[in-house]
Amino acid sequence: MAAGRRARKGDSPHFEKGDSPLFPCDVVLVTGFEPFGGEKTNPSWELCSLLPDAIGRARIETMAVPCEFRRAIETVVSAIEKHRPGVIICVGQAGGRDRLCMERIAINIDDTENADNAGVQPIDQPIAPNGPTAYFATVPVKAMAAASRIAGVPAEVSNSAGTYVCNHLLYGVLHYLAASGSTARAGFIHVPYAESQVVDKPGKPSMALPVMARGVEAAIAAALEQIDGP
Amino acid sequence: MAAGRRARKGDSPHFEKGDSPLFPCDVVLVTGFEPFGGEKTNPSWELCSLLPDAIGRARIETMAVPCEFRRAIETVVSAIEKHRPGVIICVGQAGGRDRLCMERIAINIDDTENADNAGVQPIDQPIAPNGPTAYFATVPVKAMAAASRIAGVPAEVSNSAGTYVCNHLLYGVLHYLAASGSTARAGFIHVPYAESQVVDKPGKPSMALPVMARGVEAAIAAALEQIDGP
Amino acid sequence: MAAGRRARKGDSPHFEKGDSPLFPCDVVLVTGFEPFGGEKTNPSWELCSLLPDAIGRARIETMAVPCEFRRAIETVVSAIEKHRPGVIICVGQAGGRDRLCMERIAINIDDTENADNAGVQPIDQPIAPNGPTAYFATVPVKAMAAASRIAGVPAEVSNSAGTYVCNHLLYGVLHYLAASGSTARAGFIHVPYAESQVVDKPGKPSMALPVMARGVEAAIAAALEQIDGP
Amino acid sequence: MAAGRRARKGDSPHFEKGDSPLFPCDVVLVTGFEPFGGEKTNPSWELCSLLPDAIGRARIETMAVPCEFRRAIETVVSAIEKHRPGVIICVGQAGGRDRLCMERIAINIDDTENADNAGVQPIDQPIAPNGPTAYFATVPVKAMAAASRIAGVPAEVSNSAGTYVCNHLLYGVLHYLAASGSTARAGFIHVPYAESQVVDKPGKPSMALPVMARGVEAAIAAALEQIDGP
Repeated sequence: MAAGRRARKGDSPHFEKGDSPLFPCDVVLVTGFEPFGGEKTNPSWELCSLLPDAIGRARIETMAVPCEFRRAIETVVSAIEKHRPGVIICVGQAGGRDRLCMERIAINIDDTENADNAGVQPIDQPIAPNGPTAYFATVPVKAMAAASRIAGVPAEVSNSAGTYVCNHLLYGVLHYLAASGSTARAGFIHVPYAESQVVDKPGKPSMALPVMARGVEAAIAAALEQIDGP
Repeated sequence: MAAGRRARKGDSPHFEKGDSPLFPCDVVLVTGFEPFGGEKTNPSWELCSLLPDAIGRARIETMAVPCEFRRAIETVVSAIEKHRPGVIICVGQAGGRDRLCMERIAINIDDTENADNAGVQPIDQPIAPNGPTAYFATVPVKAMAAASRIAGVPAEVSNSAGTYVCNHLLYGVLHYLAASGSTARAGFIHVPYAESQVVDKPGKPSMALPVMARGVEAAIAAALEQIDGP
Repeated sequence: MAAGRRARKGDSPHFEKGDSPLFPCDVVLVTGFEPFGGEKTNPSWELCSLLPDAIGRARIETMAVPCEFRRAIETVVSAIEKHRPGVIICVGQAGGRDRLCMERIAINIDDTENADNAGVQPIDQPIAPNGPTAYFATVPVKAMAAASRIAGVPAEVSNSAGTYVCNHLLYGVLHYLAASGSTARAGFIHVPYAESQVVDKPGKPSMALPVMARGVEAAIAAALEQIDGP
Repeated sequence: MAAGRRARKGDSPHFEKGDSPLFPCDVVLVTGFEPFGGEKTNPSWELCSLLPDAIGRARIETMAVPCEFRRAIETVVSAIEKHRPGVIICVGQAGGRDRLCMERIAINIDDTENADNAGVQPIDQPIAPNGPTAYFATVPVKAMAAASRIAGVPAEVSNSAGTYVCNHLLYGVLHYLAASGSTARAGFIHVPYAESQVVDKPGKPSMALPVMARGVEAAIAAALEQIDGP
């Protein structure tokens, strides 16, 4: 299903202006979100500090992203232009889920009952008025979920990243990469609440930060192996 | 978000060869599925017999659809060509959900761990290799969910119809309508198990068939009102 | 497991003063609760009006019970003394459950974060300071759940009626019957929300009132058959 | 609610034959179960190795308990007679729960659809034919759950330990202590699956072993403080 824009081994590792941007997999950008919805922390950003500096031969760059429509995309696009990653993995909190969720698709709509951190609350708004209805993630979501499970961390492929800032960011990044002709791959991993967040939320599952980080690391390694070859 | 292909009031109720097919809302096609996955019944088809013959000024046509990739689409497309409905509402069982789900989107992928009724089990296959990644439903999903709730029947908008025959059918119908330039609208409503199906499924919610039918009827009335005007 | 106080067939159907009260099964008392917790209705009481006047050879008496500690017990005990039922089935709403729950046991404690309808909110208070820690229900809970399922209505045995007014009432009734030496049997059936109650409660399952009533009727018939013999 | 057998500060720390056994809180016995139900591990036993050697001034003794009716009780009773703990905390796995559950009560019944590790499958059997219907745990379950939450570990009081070996063991230990006139306190903590157990169990929550151990440790500290005084 995923597109034919697979970076071949041996492709130049250097992006040259004027060419379609070809980002090698020697850098992986991992983003996490700032807290939102009244939470004091966001596990998606906290786990970033638990990731190693490198996975395989790729350097890991991490960054916190504001939980705001528009600005989330702008922030990550700036980081893409700065770090030129071959793979971008955005991570976000999906309170109520019980395992890592590798998102298969991002859809062209913002729709939320809860305002973002800037007070913006779009209802049934397209993200890109002339953009396609949806983009499939360009990372190998099944291999990533399987690798996480092999590492002992519950994970599955999800068919909806929702219609809040998480879906918005994944759509925006994929739209930017498509528009700029980049060969970089992008995906999104939703993580459960951390346990400290659910002490007063009966019925809500959680996952420990080190467990999340272990699953995300295994997923990134699997993505790199499929994209770059072993 | 939904397209600008809204049927204007006063449009000719007759489809003429050579024109883009313009289907008036004097017929609504409601489809249900045959049983699958070892179940003896499928509430999506059973509830069809509880619907009235007409909703507003639209005649209701119902039909059972085989739970098979490809044939499901072919069967419904044949019925569209026969009945020329202005609105098509496909209904399917989503075991485990606790309320009606008006599906917002269909995505271009078949992916299942369970074979369909013909023994076919596609994994990560596009439905239409050259089709778009996704289609938004062209019925007013929020108005339909609200109308169901006003009728006392739990309902919500869903952002994923899965990747089995239900999503396949919605995608196929929307793809056919887009390809044929039709102004007919199409949507999909997922329903919970009926209570008889969960007597031996601890932890699985259910809904009574007359309740489902009441919600579907209210949803169709709301769709007609928004599309046709009062 | 339950005690040896089983009414033998042929026992006098008349209670005589001075004897231990022997209530025949020609009357079944079914109680439902008034609404509580901000709800406008309570399905446990609404379903009572859907029960038949008689099940087998037993007349069905129904009554609404206030959702108040103490008064709930007093109200039902008064009705027991008036109607002299052989079987008492109290019914209550357990929002969030997805099927009928035949309660196996009542425990000697009131403990709630939500005040009852009189504003009383006991925390870790014994119901009967000198009473036993718990009473098993004296109706055949497994046969009742099985009969409900055979009637197509999801049902299971539950091991906790909670620590709110429902458990309080079951404990109180069993304590009264034990203290008075009565041979009458008593049990409790928890029912889910009705569908109208969950239209604005995403994630909460429901059950239609006629379905609940069908299950309760089947359960009562099974209880009578086991207690009285066919 | 719990009995008046509270060990007063200053009570002799030595158990003297002929007296009712008075166990001081200088030893806490923590038990975990062997794997059962096809699982390869049991987090209740695995977390024991993550507990400290002492909590406050109490030494922690841990032991694995066979997941077998009868033998589970015998094993723990032997350890009680050997170690003379002031507090006994049995820990067990409750697959499907999302947080620690401090059990409030044990009931006098064995009832299971799944045989124990010795192939025994009791149905509606009393644990102690002449024993009381139930025992309340004699540890401060609310303080323990609160302490776990303060330590950042989700926890709540539960009103049912089920009717399998876990409830059986808690009932058996409390029955033994009551019969022997011991002042030792006993309780039961149910823990979720560890994350490695649910990689192939979609929809099942989990908790990391170090998180569980942190919650159990905080709970034990709280129990000791309430029982012994600070």
